[in-house]
Amino acid sequence: MHEVLIVGSMALDSVKTPFGEVDRVVGGAAVYAATAASLMATPRVVGIVGGDFPQEALDFLVARGADLAGVKRVPEGKSFYWSGVYDYDLNDRETLDTQLNVFADFHPTLPESFRQSRYCFLANIQPQVQLSVLEQLEDARFVMCDTMNYWIDNEREALLEVLSRVDLALLNDTEIRQLADTPNLADAARRVLDLGPDYIVVKKGEYGAALVSRDEHFGIPSYPLAHVVDPTGAGDSFAGGMIGFLAHQDNCQSRDLRRAVVVGTIAASASIEDFGLDGLKQLHTSELLVRCDGLREMVQFEPIRL
Amino acid sequence: MHEVLIVGSMALDSVKTPFGEVDRVVGGAAVYAATAASLMATPRVVGIVGGDFPQEALDFLVARGADLAGVKRVPEGKSFYWSGVYDYDLNDRETLDTQLNVFADFHPTLPESFRQSRYCFLANIQPQVQLSVLEQLEDARFVMCDTMNYWIDNEREALLEVLSRVDLALLNDTEIRQLADTPNLADAARRVLDLGPDYIVVKKGEYGAALVSRDEHFGIPSYPLAHVVDPTGAGDSFAGGMIGFLAHQDNCQSRDLRRAVVVGTIAASASIEDFGLDGLKQLHTSELLVRCDGLREMVQFEPIRL
Repeated sequence: MHEVLIVGSMALDSVKTPFGEVDRVVGGAAVYAATAASLMATPRVVGIVGGDFPQEALDFLVARGADLAGVKRVPEGKSFYWSGVYDYDLNDRETLDTQLNVFADFHPTLPESFRQSRYCFLANIQPQVQLSVLEQLEDARFVMCDTMNYWIDNEREALLEVLSRVDLALLNDTEIRQLADTPNLADAARRVLDLGPDYIVVKKGEYGAALVSRDEHFGIPSYPLAHVVDPTGAGDSFAGGMIGFLAHQDNCQSRDLRRAVVVGTIAASASIEDFGLDGLKQLHTSELLVRCDGLREMVQFEPIRL
Repeated sequence: MHEVLIVGSMALDSVKTPFGEVDRVVGGAAVYAATAASLMATPRVVGIVGGDFPQEALDFLVARGADLAGVKRVPEGKSFYWSGVYDYDLNDRETLDTQLNVFADFHPTLPESFRQSRYCFLANIQPQVQLSVLEQLEDARFVMCDTMNYWIDNEREALLEVLSRVDLALLNDTEIRQLADTPNLADAARRVLDLGPDYIVVKKGEYGAALVSRDEHFGIPSYPLAHVVDPTGAGDSFAGGMIGFLAHQDNCQSRDLRRAVVVGTIAASASIEDFGLDGLKQLHTSELLVRCDGLREMVQFEPIRL
């Protein structure tokens, strides 16, 4: 029980930040999200890798309890490759190279056992692929999707169809402004809610995250870290933490969603403390709970009376 | 009782935002801060105005309970003038014109009755002027200062002297990075604490604010608004709300500081809802308290157990 379906990229990344650089380390949205979710649930991973994808990375996910029946291996192909560089304050990144490789032919057919998954995260992939996954789900209770500026610009109609069919959409602040075509975040969130989802999570990087529904607004700062090394995968770790917690609770009320955002925030905090997956791998349940309590203490204040 | 000393600019501003523009409306750090503080305390205002400063603006402050004994009028001079334009997302602004006018000769001598003030806000002015005010204070309990990039670049030594003598420094995220010469906000805050203040408030505009001391970190998102019109004066409204609340409590423990940041956040939220002072003027105690409760609800989440 507590299974979560996670569909997305499995990649090799070359990343340069002001704090160092790494070459062809394991990454990809599905890998980050599955690693985070594995602290609370059983990830059912759907992705595609080439012959160059390290076996030990797959072994690690299995050791964490993941079911990789949905991971297709193409021994003669190469894995999705991304290379990027982050600037001084780590908020902006520049993509140097993207090679889709085997990911160009990612048309996932869910294993029979995966179709009953109740909690799902559709990471940032072509909206048409997200739709095809949605159509294979038979008993979904809560589906989250991510996306990116490229799909907002180039596949808007398919993306709108996805948004009309998911429960929660994750967007960063730039994307939600772009999607809603308004600079005001609260206003933009409201407009995106009108497109279908019950919840929007606005990811603001180092500035935290907001959870917005038609009748409430939850906001939380990011977990403060004195040493941030590599923001790659932070958003996917966030999403994996969220969906893992929801599956663990097997409940999706407002009180669960709020706490899921907190868990996501902490998963993201661990993810950015080291390059690639190294930061997130070091996050265990005990530290996750300690940080969640820390964040709770961080936002506490007594009622104001005058 | 509950007096707060507020020292800073009193200005005429011309502002253009994507939502409209205004010409030569009353503004200035001391005016915004005094208006916000007046909801909770008696502002003792120290500033300088020219013959062009509208009498009704002074009358308004007096009606709000302010003591203007420290406001010097130079009938033959012109008031400090600032003109600026905000871009689409309101986070960046460009200064089109600054005319110091009478403000160039702002060397305040505190009225005798002001020297015993226990709660003080030294708004963004030349650090040497901030120092001269500090030297005239006889019984200060809690002093907050603001500053800006110009002084960090050009009057660094005097600014460091100010920082060594105040209890709390307000900085926006760009300024604190610049002052501490590090991109990481948590790290930057720690370095600035080493310069002297017990507390740093990092203002992050629409992303909220953080209060950092040597042993704790408080963070709060901004109050969500669907209609933001003019960010001018938001930081000074924030500071005025903070110092007014502290004076009202006559206490400066962590629990007071946290709530002061919340009150500041709400004062800033009202300030940006209309041009010039029009937004802040409409904020009354009842609405202030309603919004404080709203912000408290906004960050609530239950403990996380797995």
